[in-house]
Amino acid sequence: MSDQPLQPPVDQLAAATLSDVAVVPKHEFSDRVPIRSILGRPDGGSGLAGQRARVGGWVKTGRKQGSGSFAFLELNDGSCPMNLQVIVDSAVADLGLLVPTGTCVAVEGVLKAPPEGTKQKIELRVEEVVHVGPVDPAKYPLPKTKLTLEFLRDVVHLRPKTNTISAVARIRNALAYATHTFFQKHGFLYIHTPIITTSDCEGAGEMFQVTTLINEAEKVEKELIKNPPPSEEDIEAAKLLVKEKGEAVAQLKSAKASKADITASVAELTKAKEKLSKLEERFKLKPGIPQKDGKIDYERDFFARQAFLTVSGQLQVETFACSVSSVYTFGPTFRAEHSHTSRHLAEFWMVEPEIAFADLKDDMNCAEAYVKFLCKWLLDDCLDDMEFMAKNFDKTCIDRLRMVASTPFERISYTEAVDLLVEAVNGGKQFENKVEWGIDLASEHERYLTEVKFQKPVIVYNYPKGIKAFYMRLNDDSKTVAAMDVLVPKVGELIGGSQREERYEVIRDRILEMELPLEPYEWYLDLRRYGTVKHCGFGLGFERMILFATGIDNIRDVIPFPRYPGRADL
Amino acid sequence: MSDQPLQPPVDQLAAATLSDVAVVPKHEFSDRVPIRSILGRPDGGSGLAGQRARVGGWVKTGRKQGSGSFAFLELNDGSCPMNLQVIVDSAVADLGLLVPTGTCVAVEGVLKAPPEGTKQKIELRVEEVVHVGPVDPAKYPLPKTKLTLEFLRDVVHLRPKTNTISAVARIRNALAYATHTFFQKHGFLYIHTPIITTSDCEGAGEMFQVTTLINEAEKVEKELIKNPPPSEEDIEAAKLLVKEKGEAVAQLKSAKASKADITASVAELTKAKEKLSKLEERFKLKPGIPQKDGKIDYERDFFARQAFLTVSGQLQVETFACSVSSVYTFGPTFRAEHSHTSRHLAEFWMVEPEIAFADLKDDMNCAEAYVKFLCKWLLDDCLDDMEFMAKNFDKTCIDRLRMVASTPFERISYTEAVDLLVEAVNGGKQFENKVEWGIDLASEHERYLTEVKFQKPVIVYNYPKGIKAFYMRLNDDSKTVAAMDVLVPKVGELIGGSQREERYEVIRDRILEMELPLEPYEWYLDLRRYGTVKHCGFGLGFERMILFATGIDNIRDVIPFPRYPGRADL
Repeated sequence: MSDQPLQPPVDQLAAATLSDVAVVPKHEFSDRVPIRSILGRPDGGSGLAGQRARVGGWVKTGRKQGSGSFAFLELNDGSCPMNLQVIVDSAVADLGLLVPTGTCVAVEGVLKAPPEGTKQKIELRVEEVVHVGPVDPAKYPLPKTKLTLEFLRDVVHLRPKTNTISAVARIRNALAYATHTFFQKHGFLYIHTPIITTSDCEGAGEMFQVTTLINEAEKVEKELIKNPPPSEEDIEAAKLLVKEKGEAVAQLKSAKASKADITASVAELTKAKEKLSKLEERFKLKPGIPQKDGKIDYERDFFARQAFLTVSGQLQVETFACSVSSVYTFGPTFRAEHSHTSRHLAEFWMVEPEIAFADLKDDMNCAEAYVKFLCKWLLDDCLDDMEFMAKNFDKTCIDRLRMVASTPFERISYTEAVDLLVEAVNGGKQFENKVEWGIDLASEHERYLTEVKFQKPVIVYNYPKGIKAFYMRLNDDSKTVAAMDVLVPKVGELIGGSQREERYEVIRDRILEMELPLEPYEWYLDLRRYGTVKHCGFGLGFERMILFATGIDNIRDVIPFPRYPGRADL
Repeated sequence: MSDQPLQPPVDQLAAATLSDVAVVPKHEFSDRVPIRSILGRPDGGSGLAGQRARVGGWVKTGRKQGSGSFAFLELNDGSCPMNLQVIVDSAVADLGLLVPTGTCVAVEGVLKAPPEGTKQKIELRVEEVVHVGPVDPAKYPLPKTKLTLEFLRDVVHLRPKTNTISAVARIRNALAYATHTFFQKHGFLYIHTPIITTSDCEGAGEMFQVTTLINEAEKVEKELIKNPPPSEEDIEAAKLLVKEKGEAVAQLKSAKASKADITASVAELTKAKEKLSKLEERFKLKPGIPQKDGKIDYERDFFARQAFLTVSGQLQVETFACSVSSVYTFGPTFRAEHSHTSRHLAEFWMVEPEIAFADLKDDMNCAEAYVKFLCKWLLDDCLDDMEFMAKNFDKTCIDRLRMVASTPFERISYTEAVDLLVEAVNGGKQFENKVEWGIDLASEHERYLTEVKFQKPVIVYNYPKGIKAFYMRLNDDSKTVAAMDVLVPKVGELIGGSQREERYEVIRDRILEMELPLEPYEWYLDLRRYGTVKHCGFGLGFERMILFATGIDNIRDVIPFPRYPGRADL
């Protein structure tokens, strides 16, 4: 039993794993040791027996033992899914205050090997309770009983305290950092594309409007109630006053009055003029949103035009791809669609790389390498959380990650995909949606290909131009475009991408052919007018990736603060 | 002169620098070699002489030489600020097409040592021109003459093609990845706080409204114009028809008509009823935004309540700090303020860490370590871009980074800061704003402290409670709160943070004292009701950090797509 502080061994642990930045070293900005630094060691913490440590966390389960002479607390601080077992004597603290689920405690003591035969490798014997943040179990909204994910959506501010939501937070964090690391390693620059936009990505979906007009109108209305506008008579009276004061000045001047008298009279005139001008200004104030020619006057909105929340950063990030070659954007995107499904959110995150001097094959290579990298990262960095998911949500999720990380993706053309689906129908497979060349593949088709036919990720490429966006590169057959979708088991489409049309005349014709206006795309056409370059890119729905990894069913449970029709808590 | 491909040596370079992920290895998803992989080598590329390479990029300057028998092109691909010199023979390509500034080319050839006495260490002799994206110099909006940053804001889609904006993009990218790496290394989880929010961060600023009401109203109006609503007479006529058809059915039934006749008659009645119901539905359609009790009916808006763009992720990220201990958010934030200054944007990015089991001192330690880490990262990773900035914008910017990276920050209390300012005034220093205990420090005061008095970063802590937010922890003196600001030369305030009030009764009283409503903060109070924990955090304005690093004066030039009053291009 030594009195030396825990710091040295944990610091060594930190140094040993510094290249693997996702492992938690000793916390430099807190006086506690993260529980992961103890239980996350290869020896499960047993090598730290005898060391002194201060830890902090929230009680998962607490129970008094030995006729109330001591208590066991299972303590979790969010640094890992494992709880540290903590033993407190009744001489040290009021045990009744410590044991309720949800209680926050910071405790200091000595790490000890537990009795043989218990599953813990190490436990903490508390000598001092440094802090208690109590919980009244009668009022606490998260009782120890198993709560449904649906129930937890109604307590979005407390749900990170649950095992599932905190595990998802760690997995989401790992995937986000893995994303940055992958692209940085390959020389891509992270570009912050705008959230507020005045151009839409070819009607990718319904857009939210961003405005200050309503707010301004409400301010005016309040102001007009508090302080009614002048009447026409008020204006006339003020005009008359100005006239009178003007005449007075003229009179004094022609009478060659004293300078002092004239100055005083001019001051009165100025005052009268100011009053009139203020009244006229206020007379113009109208309640309601400003209109012009029967329409809303967006010149009076904050950006002097109609503005929206972005549906994709692709078009904007292309301006950087066409200048600095390899770029990506990773940010929130929005759809104002009234979808009440388990796969749609009004606010979600997308990863969108864009590569210059690259074609559809490069695009597919990049997408495959990226998805594999993410899967490998989770297996290396989040295995404990993945084991929690496998145990509680999807037995196959770890095997799925291993398979995707190690198996080359199948690549088939759209035409081949349709042939395979027709073959399946002829073999007795039933689909709800009809299969024929030219259709947009439905989710059931995609999942058949990846889950049944190939049982691994499938990239489908070269889609009919009629079902794809104007900016996708027209193939030589003039019927298909160089688009590709990555389909994976469990979620279907995970990635959509394409080589972009870099030929000025071709893209111009495509815009006109699709009856889109040219003017809003002039800037986009400029990228083809001046120093055009072959380029490609794709978008990965970040929440879909988390659904794929964890096996969780509803997208509302894999984003910290879900937004959907009728709901935007906090 | 060997014919072996460039890949092996560049791959070795990549492997050698893989731990330093910010160095560009050979591009895996393109057939070109990034110019940085050549010129970014310690030998400036000279060791690659004799190797074959394909590169792609845009012509910075091109000139024909030797009576037009060959051309020099300075080629840049955005992977680094340096240009590769490329020599093309007139036998290989139409030189006139290649030399205009802005032209995109992909070329293949052999790397050669240039003649002695030239500044290049390596150049490329082209054997094949693989791609040309031409430019008509008469129309190109970015002529070779030096362009002002102001001018470039009007061509936001093309400005990444300039040396300055591309250098800023690389510096911004480096700072973003450094931010993630710093927090990941210290065990923080990256949490995506919401962009659309229904709670405001204690009136941190004017908010943008997010709505679908206007759009819906416009749809209704268009529909009503295309298809005018029924008149009252139309409704009456339809009602009459239903009555008649009903009577007809009754008549047939009482006359015991054939089943076929009755069925036909019932069908007619049903049709008439449907028509009436549709007319009544359309009769209710009103142009304009839906109202209820004289106010806008937000129950009909997308989220069934008023929604805004976030001004800060702090309050939301606290829900995770109080569950998983160490977290940060890094995302866009918004202010609808009509500021036309060089320091304000309507959309900007913020980094906001939040640490549980930590107090104000930990907060200051974290802020100082983070800022130092960023400065060191730029010196290690972006020195070539920083040299460009030093040459073109701010001679002192590299020295400033070195100083901040290596000097302990001064820490003084607000009271000490005011004493020092008063002392300066007594010594003859003139400020525009009066100095006395209780004022909010103005920018001139902050810059005096960091630039003149200490000539290094200064952290001022323990501010008067009257000028700070309700959530900051009240000190024992009951006069000050545990807030802190980090002031740095060149920009003044870079970071603002505080220990948060974790005591339920105290924060409740503070909310009431500041005459804020309790109801919107009930969820925030819950964090103190159930398992409360000592915690702290801060916010760093990401664009301010870039201004500080680069010495650029206007914030509109350090974000890819600036948004400010009257302006939101693309």
